[in-house]
Amino acid sequence: MDYPLSIKQLVGALRALPSIGPRSAERLALFLIQEDPHIGREISRTILEALEKIQRCPECGFFTEAGICEICRDEKRNGRLICLVESATDVLAFERSKSFDGKYHVLGGVLSPLDGIGPDELKIPKFLSRVERDSVKEVIIGLNTDVKGETTSIYIADKLKKMDVKVTRLATGLSVGGSLEFANALTLAHALQDRKAI
Amino acid sequence: MDYPLSIKQLVGALRALPSIGPRSAERLALFLIQEDPHIGREISRTILEALEKIQRCPECGFFTEAGICEICRDEKRNGRLICLVESATDVLAFERSKSFDGKYHVLGGVLSPLDGIGPDELKIPKFLSRVERDSVKEVIIGLNTDVKGETTSIYIADKLKKMDVKVTRLATGLSVGGSLEFANALTLAHALQDRKAI
Repeated sequence: MDYPLSIKQLVGALRALPSIGPRSAERLALFLIQEDPHIGREISRTILEALEKIQRCPECGFFTEAGICEICRDEKRNGRLICLVESATDVLAFERSKSFDGKYHVLGGVLSPLDGIGPDELKIPKFLSRVERDSVKEVIIGLNTDVKGETTSIYIADKLKKMDVKVTRLATGLSVGGSLEFANALTLAHALQDRKAI
Repeated sequence: MDYPLSIKQLVGALRALPSIGPRSAERLALFLIQEDPHIGREISRTILEALEKIQRCPECGFFTEAGICEICRDEKRNGRLICLVESATDVLAFERSKSFDGKYHVLGGVLSPLDGIGPDELKIPKFLSRVERDSVKEVIIGLNTDVKGETTSIYIADKLKKMDVKVTRLATGLSVGGSLEFANALTLAHALQDRKAI
């Protein structure tokens, strides 16, 4: 004996979620069936609604429900300062820091020639035209600091240098509130090199 | 700036799930929006289908999609041997041990006077009539071994002793205070084999 078909199908569907294994999927499925059915209906409804409504901003690639996104539409933000990030979620990380009043550009990935992801797949030419069209003064490269992120940063910085744009990158160093003990060697090397007078 | 409304609503809905905190809910929501939309649609569909189709067997209380459940309908199983469990998920735990060919009765809870859960709330009289009607020879009490489970076991054993039924309980071997749901198949098989009269 096993669960009825519709429970097994639900468990199977939930397993497609990240970091949900077979036991977690079963637990979630049984929760959805046994607890208030309103919870399950609300999850169903909101998934479908988000899938239907969420699009990418044609300007910057961030999430939007209708055409140009809220950030691109915001005239109080400095459109001549662009922070280039890998994914739409990175935009929110910067927004939470409340330290940036420019606009963003979501690359949607990093260069990875072995996976067939080149400059055209990331629409880098489109980004460069945006920089030119908006007379952007500075591009802050905010990609991840792993190997692929670094390669992509160098490629784009190189393209931008041929235009009249200041190109900067995020500072590397210790995390604020973090312990020295947990900083890796490379981070410490960077933190030493970029030390500041106090 | 924050996520568009439909993403925020999806994150909110996912937070109602057990052991999904705000960060996990956000990660799941973004996964659903950014990955293959088929995954989200399939989860939506299977939740609604399970909510619509799954009922409780009027005989034993296990999950069913149509009337009497598969276990109760199975004539190869011994209807004179009933294993009494707390929840429908416990039935699956026993089934996985492949050591039981009787039928089940799902109590749906345990006695808890302070929460207003008495014998009538658990339909214990209905269970006792079933035992009588089906001329059950043996009832194996398979409730959890915590305090409320023990109290309920003793209460029911007491009622059954007044009828002509052998009452047994699962052998110790289960960790006391542990939940049936987490017992492995072998432990359950041993516990079934070593059941003792009370």
